[in-house]
Amino acid sequence: MSSVTSTATVTVTGHLMDTGVLARVLDDVLEYGGDYRITRLDLGREHEDESTALIEVRADGAEKLDRILMRVQVHGANPVDPGTATTRPAPADGVFPDDFYSTTNLDTLVRLDREWLRVGNPEMDCGLVVTRGDGGDAVVRTVPVSDVRAGDAVVCGAAGVRVELPPTPARGEEDDFGFMSSAVSSEKPQALLVRQIAERLREVKAAGKRVLWVGGPAVVHTGAAPAMVRLVRAGYVDVLFAGNALATHDIESALFGTSLGVDLAKGSGVPHGHEHHIRAINTIRRAGSIAAAVETGVLTGGVMYAMVAAGKPFVLVGSVRDDGPLPDVHTDVIEGQRAMRAELHDVGFAIMVATMLHSIATGNLLPASIPLVCVDINPATVTKLADRGSAQAMGIVTDIGLFLEQLARELAPE
Amino acid sequence: MSSVTSTATVTVTGHLMDTGVLARVLDDVLEYGGDYRITRLDLGREHEDESTALIEVRADGAEKLDRILMRVQVHGANPVDPGTATTRPAPADGVFPDDFYSTTNLDTLVRLDREWLRVGNPEMDCGLVVTRGDGGDAVVRTVPVSDVRAGDAVVCGAAGVRVELPPTPARGEEDDFGFMSSAVSSEKPQALLVRQIAERLREVKAAGKRVLWVGGPAVVHTGAAPAMVRLVRAGYVDVLFAGNALATHDIESALFGTSLGVDLAKGSGVPHGHEHHIRAINTIRRAGSIAAAVETGVLTGGVMYAMVAAGKPFVLVGSVRDDGPLPDVHTDVIEGQRAMRAELHDVGFAIMVATMLHSIATGNLLPASIPLVCVDINPATVTKLADRGSAQAMGIVTDIGLFLEQLARELAPE
Amino acid sequence: MSSVTSTATVTVTGHLMDTGVLARVLDDVLEYGGDYRITRLDLGREHEDESTALIEVRADGAEKLDRILMRVQVHGANPVDPGTATTRPAPADGVFPDDFYSTTNLDTLVRLDREWLRVGNPEMDCGLVVTRGDGGDAVVRTVPVSDVRAGDAVVCGAAGVRVELPPTPARGEEDDFGFMSSAVSSEKPQALLVRQIAERLREVKAAGKRVLWVGGPAVVHTGAAPAMVRLVRAGYVDVLFAGNALATHDIESALFGTSLGVDLAKGSGVPHGHEHHIRAINTIRRAGSIAAAVETGVLTGGVMYAMVAAGKPFVLVGSVRDDGPLPDVHTDVIEGQRAMRAELHDVGFAIMVATMLHSIATGNLLPASIPLVCVDINPATVTKLADRGSAQAMGIVTDIGLFLEQLARELAPE
Amino acid sequence: MSSVTSTATVTVTGHLMDTGVLARVLDDVLEYGGDYRITRLDLGREHEDESTALIEVRADGAEKLDRILMRVQVHGANPVDPGTATTRPAPADGVFPDDFYSTTNLDTLVRLDREWLRVGNPEMDCGLVVTRGDGGDAVVRTVPVSDVRAGDAVVCGAAGVRVELPPTPARGEEDDFGFMSSAVSSEKPQALLVRQIAERLREVKAAGKRVLWVGGPAVVHTGAAPAMVRLVRAGYVDVLFAGNALATHDIESALFGTSLGVDLAKGSGVPHGHEHHIRAINTIRRAGSIAAAVETGVLTGGVMYAMVAAGKPFVLVGSVRDDGPLPDVHTDVIEGQRAMRAELHDVGFAIMVATMLHSIATGNLLPASIPLVCVDINPATVTKLADRGSAQAMGIVTDIGLFLEQLARELAPE
Repeated sequence: MSSVTSTATVTVTGHLMDTGVLARVLDDVLEYGGDYRITRLDLGREHEDESTALIEVRADGAEKLDRILMRVQVHGANPVDPGTATTRPAPADGVFPDDFYSTTNLDTLVRLDREWLRVGNPEMDCGLVVTRGDGGDAVVRTVPVSDVRAGDAVVCGAAGVRVELPPTPARGEEDDFGFMSSAVSSEKPQALLVRQIAERLREVKAAGKRVLWVGGPAVVHTGAAPAMVRLVRAGYVDVLFAGNALATHDIESALFGTSLGVDLAKGSGVPHGHEHHIRAINTIRRAGSIAAAVETGVLTGGVMYAMVAAGKPFVLVGSVRDDGPLPDVHTDVIEGQRAMRAELHDVGFAIMVATMLHSIATGNLLPASIPLVCVDINPATVTKLADRGSAQAMGIVTDIGLFLEQLARELAPE
Repeated sequence: MSSVTSTATVTVTGHLMDTGVLARVLDDVLEYGGDYRITRLDLGREHEDESTALIEVRADGAEKLDRILMRVQVHGANPVDPGTATTRPAPADGVFPDDFYSTTNLDTLVRLDREWLRVGNPEMDCGLVVTRGDGGDAVVRTVPVSDVRAGDAVVCGAAGVRVELPPTPARGEEDDFGFMSSAVSSEKPQALLVRQIAERLREVKAAGKRVLWVGGPAVVHTGAAPAMVRLVRAGYVDVLFAGNALATHDIESALFGTSLGVDLAKGSGVPHGHEHHIRAINTIRRAGSIAAAVETGVLTGGVMYAMVAAGKPFVLVGSVRDDGPLPDVHTDVIEGQRAMRAELHDVGFAIMVATMLHSIATGNLLPASIPLVCVDINPATVTKLADRGSAQAMGIVTDIGLFLEQLARELAPE
Repeated sequence: MSSVTSTATVTVTGHLMDTGVLARVLDDVLEYGGDYRITRLDLGREHEDESTALIEVRADGAEKLDRILMRVQVHGANPVDPGTATTRPAPADGVFPDDFYSTTNLDTLVRLDREWLRVGNPEMDCGLVVTRGDGGDAVVRTVPVSDVRAGDAVVCGAAGVRVELPPTPARGEEDDFGFMSSAVSSEKPQALLVRQIAERLREVKAAGKRVLWVGGPAVVHTGAAPAMVRLVRAGYVDVLFAGNALATHDIESALFGTSLGVDLAKGSGVPHGHEHHIRAINTIRRAGSIAAAVETGVLTGGVMYAMVAAGKPFVLVGSVRDDGPLPDVHTDVIEGQRAMRAELHDVGFAIMVATMLHSIATGNLLPASIPLVCVDINPATVTKLADRGSAQAMGIVTDIGLFLEQLARELAPE
Repeated sequence: MSSVTSTATVTVTGHLMDTGVLARVLDDVLEYGGDYRITRLDLGREHEDESTALIEVRADGAEKLDRILMRVQVHGANPVDPGTATTRPAPADGVFPDDFYSTTNLDTLVRLDREWLRVGNPEMDCGLVVTRGDGGDAVVRTVPVSDVRAGDAVVCGAAGVRVELPPTPARGEEDDFGFMSSAVSSEKPQALLVRQIAERLREVKAAGKRVLWVGGPAVVHTGAAPAMVRLVRAGYVDVLFAGNALATHDIESALFGTSLGVDLAKGSGVPHGHEHHIRAINTIRRAGSIAAAVETGVLTGGVMYAMVAAGKPFVLVGSVRDDGPLPDVHTDVIEGQRAMRAELHDVGFAIMVATMLHSIATGNLLPASIPLVCVDINPATVTKLADRGSAQAMGIVTDIGLFLEQLARELAPE
């Protein structure tokens, strides 16, 4: 390793004390093998005031320092002297230069010459690619590694990149909804949480934004499909991300009255009733698509029917455990991610129910500025989502069946 | 070990095939080191018919055979030639003779001379003590080992004891409620389950029976106390078993508006707010008892208030993790078990919510003939309850807060 | 529905009583809306004898009856008069005829004319496609719905299909390993289980069979990669199925000494250290493949390195939550399933550690005759695997890190 | 509520930034309805320097302010002007004055006149009682509410009480062991953790301190009793806290070779084998005590035998779900807590395995200065322990069977 010590000063502003942001920045400097000195701290005296810190970061060598600088941007800490960005050409299709800038999911700005350019579509773990528009103006986009092309101009190193934290209220100022950002817990007044989410969904719709749902098959297993259908009809589901399982179980239920072996009307279990499952898939494959099955009268009920009937888009992405799959399912997962990205426009709120795989997949794509709620009976799902960097995730550990039933009562009373 | 082979023939009647009872009997014979031969099997041809099996059981020596015979009675299999019961005096207070008959939780009959005497209070893992009534008539009671007195006549060995299975419908005949006896699952239509339990509670009350609730502190944490209060007021909670925690959190909530650090009206978390907890306990200790705190106007709301106001009994039993405890809490757990037993009379249905400790404790005391539902967000609670021998347990894995809210909407609409 | 009652008689042989097979057959008849009469039952008197039952099954109409007959084949119950199979042409690419025979994962035979033809590759939830070999001989293969081509001759209905249960010892006869087939449990003597699995792996290798491993990223997170490497070197890992995550975390650990933020040598956590993750992927993408990175000296350690060095194949299949992915990852999940099928030849034992997604995916593809062990700290993974029909699954709920460490001590002492 | 604003200034010193302590203090002020102004902050410039903050706290009225001042002492924040303590007589046996000072588990000092007196036995959620020694010197003890006597002088309000945080190294300075204080995780290199705990146990013994174990019945179920016995014999178990279950299952295993239905040598499950359980209890009851059963040769193996043979004390405390119980079990839980307190002297390390109930009970009694490790396959146990205020708890989510096996290999090789 290098024996030269490199230094840089970063600044971070916000509710540094009572949100723990400063502690996390310092923590990361140490974790990445650097050291720090707080050179200045302008305290917010009253708790509603923001504070600003200047932190001198030291590391062995420029490369290590660069890593730390990129790292602490996750918490909104930017270099005081950001310099201008360097780009290098991608060495091959699907490959970034070695020292590419790895993105956060925060609002990001890049300075190439004098001006700061805002990156259009923040997404974490991507590269930043600079292109020239028709008028010669530079444009910066996040590009996942699989989509970069040889020769693309990729931002490298930490210089010339700045991020912006989403505005967070100080502790104590938070609106009624904010409290959910505190620890994941099954020990919260659940009925109150449902009402607060209903209120938030009304606000999002009133603001002309779209509501994104991400769902797992338990939506059907817990008997909550009718509640979900009511939410679709009432206009609270603008786009749905799911896998083959939710759609197949929903369609199986509509066609056969069962869902992987549960007779939903009677409640009786039909263990391992896989063949209904594969027959449902075959029926839709024969029709050509879910929409075609709706048009030809083959499919006349359920969540997927309601989405088609309401003219709302859905993106189904496959997994290695899928049977079939349904003809609408993207069997290529990278294609599936592209289809999901294409439906993130104007999303103002995301709600994820009963799926770890698709929730994390969506969390990976969402910018930090879009609030999201993750609802699951398994605390690990919510915890993992937050650990992956979706810090804006609010978790509710509860039963999906009763949750959707009560949400539908609030928003779409029968 | 003995080299003498002892044999006996047992008989079992019921829906042997489609309920798996026969398989379990044979399984246990092998597990306990014996062997079997099915000597006769009168099949129920149609599935609604009952079947009867005669099974010859072999084991090395009489003691091992006796163990097997006691064991298979758990499944309702009785010896064809039961003989008459032998009693031996308890060798000391709190000690059974070595070969005491260890009870099941099934309806049990004992033959001392010619007549079969019904045991008044079936309870598992107890002994059977024979006493003489005023007129000289023999009476047989289950007695836990801690309550036996030196010299008590305790039934020993397997002879002269017979059990009766509760009637179970054949598969396919079951009433709407019956399906819950199938596997524990979070993948059931939850809203339907709530309606079925509501219906069952109405039937139990209409039949003049009492409803026993067993609850944990999550009843309060999940904000479900108001729903629980409505159920108390509507007469659906005849007796409540709980620990120090449920009562303290409920009272803390009534006195301070918090429950171990959750501001229930606002939903905000107050992490580790223990001192409210211990202050609430101190306040009730000063009043002398929960009822006294109600009478003197110190306590004016919550579940415990509602129980006192409705004149309904509760039994609080302590645990080693308790703070305080409240003055009403039995700090001696064996005394606590006695107090619980004293409140089992006329119970027609038991519902256990969000507590593993008290659910299993109650399950240990209940006869198999009393149906019970166990509701918990943690599947392990329900599974453990069933594993402990409470085969009549039906499990629902769901969120307590939403469950109680919806049950109250069904039974006690606002 | 049809008002005509259709009937057929099925027969099942084996340890019907003490394994619960008969109960499950009867159960399924009722669940699928049929009814039954046991017309004959030849009992195994002694518990080691097999029994044979004849069961008359009734249902409303031939279609419903056909469904039941297909269904009970899951338990090894075959029609007494199987008739000959009917085939119909697939109506389109990727579509079966409506009444296609949906396969079990049991050894399966099909009778087209007189002779019973054995299906080469049992797999559940597929169709059976008949082709003519060069000499005009018929061959029957399982074909997943996505692989069927228009015009393929697909077996329809239940006639002419017979299945064979894998031999199961009676209760009490089981070998040392057999006990694990009993309920999933974390309450088993774990050290004993490890020794038994080690013994089984030695036997499988001695018999010239291959050992298939399916692994999740926790293999790396728990610090078990060195133990896994020793198992690879000792020849106990013939083929590895995994996702992008295991391989990336392993490679990240080899390149940077971290795995998604855990410094494995020091044990310290580096929360959200995603950029190491994406840099590791980029490095391998630049090399072209994992094998190329090994050849060029870029990758010099870890599990994936060990597999390449040992000349052992691996199949990596992507998921929608993947970053990157690595160049070796199948991004099309259906292609990935095909690649997995191609590596099932000569597998004599499958061991699945710490991955629900890939374990279920593999369980879907494996015939019932291949024993498998599923090891996970999460009981739900094992339970779900068994529920999906992989009845041969044996579950161990334990910690992967300590499990692999102890297995390596048994099989590949340092 | 009062309309008068009360203010006080508190000071806190330590690694305020990178440990998040300051954030937590400010958080609590807001949560308890107060407000703050940071009046001075002397920064540790380098990360190894300590910082000191002065915080002015405001609240509506003196009572609310007092509550906040008591509350923030949990984090080591003391009033700048502590004043002298006020005592008031306990109004009745088992009742504190209303405004009693509720203790933390930190080292605590009380100033009555001029001098600061150190409280001998820190324990949370207690009161502070002042007594006069023989020479007239004041002594201050923590007293649980159940043990206070009418007229005892109880410290009231926040004045005159000061706490001391245990020394914590700055982030990055921590010894090899320290990292475990970071988040609970199953994704840590488990084999490394075991070695670190072994090292710590050696150090604790070398320092002449006692090691306290708290155990649940899974120690026996997982087959780890022989490993535990080796640890007892090697001197690494100075005192054991447990319930009736661990001791009974251990003794059942020693007497019958089973533990609630698991044949430990063979690994076979004996479901619901309760009667062995109750017979084991009866046998010990007959002997009079566990020690008596050892002396008379009735009990000749297992963990409890090893403890008796090694002359090491154990404290068994009962619960409402107990059968029997064993004669050594404290059936009164408050008596049980007293017996546990009496065995905390000289404990230098506490290790809790596989029991939520007894782990939390012990955590409630331990001062914050005693490090503790909690090992459980269930993450909730560790999380709950930390939430209860045992901030010094380090959690390991792993399998008890393999954990104890490996720990015994490190410390007590066969």
